[in-house]
Amino acid sequence: MRNLFMKVNYDGTHYDGFQTQPKGNTIQDQLEKAIHHLTGEGLKITASGRTDAGVHAYGQPFNFLTSSRIPIERWCLALNTRLPQDIVVTEACEVPLSFHSRRGAKRKTYRYLINGNRFPDPFQRRWQYHHPVALNIPAMEQGLAHVIGTHDFTSFASRRSTKTSHVRTIFETHMEVDRSMCRPGSSDQGVIHTYITGSGFLQHMVRIIMGTLINVGEGKCQADDVAHILAACDRAAAGPTAIAKGLALWNVEYGETEK
Amino acid sequence: MRNLFMKVNYDGTHYDGFQTQPKGNTIQDQLEKAIHHLTGEGLKITASGRTDAGVHAYGQPFNFLTSSRIPIERWCLALNTRLPQDIVVTEACEVPLSFHSRRGAKRKTYRYLINGNRFPDPFQRRWQYHHPVALNIPAMEQGLAHVIGTHDFTSFASRRSTKTSHVRTIFETHMEVDRSMCRPGSSDQGVIHTYITGSGFLQHMVRIIMGTLINVGEGKCQADDVAHILAACDRAAAGPTAIAKGLALWNVEYGETEK
Repeated sequence: MRNLFMKVNYDGTHYDGFQTQPKGNTIQDQLEKAIHHLTGEGLKITASGRTDAGVHAYGQPFNFLTSSRIPIERWCLALNTRLPQDIVVTEACEVPLSFHSRRGAKRKTYRYLINGNRFPDPFQRRWQYHHPVALNIPAMEQGLAHVIGTHDFTSFASRRSTKTSHVRTIFETHMEVDRSMCRPGSSDQGVIHTYITGSGFLQHMVRIIMGTLINVGEGKCQADDVAHILAACDRAAAGPTAIAKGLALWNVEYGETEK
Repeated sequence: MRNLFMKVNYDGTHYDGFQTQPKGNTIQDQLEKAIHHLTGEGLKITASGRTDAGVHAYGQPFNFLTSSRIPIERWCLALNTRLPQDIVVTEACEVPLSFHSRRGAKRKTYRYLINGNRFPDPFQRRWQYHHPVALNIPAMEQGLAHVIGTHDFTSFASRRSTKTSHVRTIFETHMEVDRSMCRPGSSDQGVIHTYITGSGFLQHMVRIIMGTLINVGEGKCQADDVAHILAACDRAAAGPTAIAKGLALWNVEYGETEK
């Protein structure tokens, strides 16, 4: 048996999320189907975590045990020819049998894109939340800083969360504005990129943080309210769940010894 | 009567090009339908030029005469709510009745994208030609320089061209490589952006120039062969017509007095 570790990019627009579910068309289903087509094995893959319906990923890690002897350098191309065009495997390597994509993940980064320009971008619209109303970006950055550290994130978790603990650690956050597609002389705000890196994330956590930050940006609440919302440990205190399409899993890091 | 000038961005993936044609679903059809829905007028628009099926545009200019009194600042949003999501009007202004989008155009720039990374990008695949085999980019740049100037471009025009003269002027060209999506330590070449600015372009001209440059990049011919191909005035001398999806109309400039 070999334990193979891979990374996959996917445009999640047309999928019911990463993880297999009844009657769903998921990224996991497509990957397992491609592996079955290639090796004949009806195996299950393990990813670093699930992503919601409509959420995208750059380099989502996954691994699986296989008895196939196909050389490691052939796997990416062999799987990509068997996958739909919106799912692309970009890396493959062999790892120790003990390696586990979810349990071994040390840091995960998500990216959320808000297009603050007056008009949507027809090319990037599938992964940008279009918000043409002016946002107070410095206030959003100040609000975002409040989530850094170890906190109980109950206010920023789906009510359907079944986790016994809602304590998570956010290591760092970063916002930047790309103004390259702004029309000269316009009131276009640019595309706001928000990166959030943490030990792990609860269901809808990044999307609820973003929905709350958008409230801050619109002036519906203040940057420092984010601290009060966090302390409340009550989903009702936070803002709405921002639309899935703006979100992408951006990076997952493992410890040196694991891989 | 008012003469309205607008700019439109479109993802051409699902369209039969810009210009109305029998049984076609074109960008022009969609724009005229949206205008008809808004004003009740069954008018014809004039663009700076046509684009082929599958070709995209950033800021394609067009104009039309209307008797509508809708204030100019309302037009973009009013049309966008009536257009499919892959077509977005971004600018609108009133121009002198004599202004003509095609006749007034002084300089047009096209962009062609080649993704030279090992694997396609699922997010950008609709507007990138994926060419994972190593390309000699300096040779391509050297070849590209030969098209600058005023030449008979018969070698780089579709055999179906009905123009009486194939003489056009290329003012400038530019290539740059975006390595931001390259995987560290990989043989990824990055995404090659090629910009070509000219007085006007013949049918398939940019795509045949690009197909020829790809031949140069693959070592099938030399950079200086581009000069001989140009001199031959024979479509058979040039390379293949590069795939439409890599091409986008990037910018159109008018004289100061026109607009």
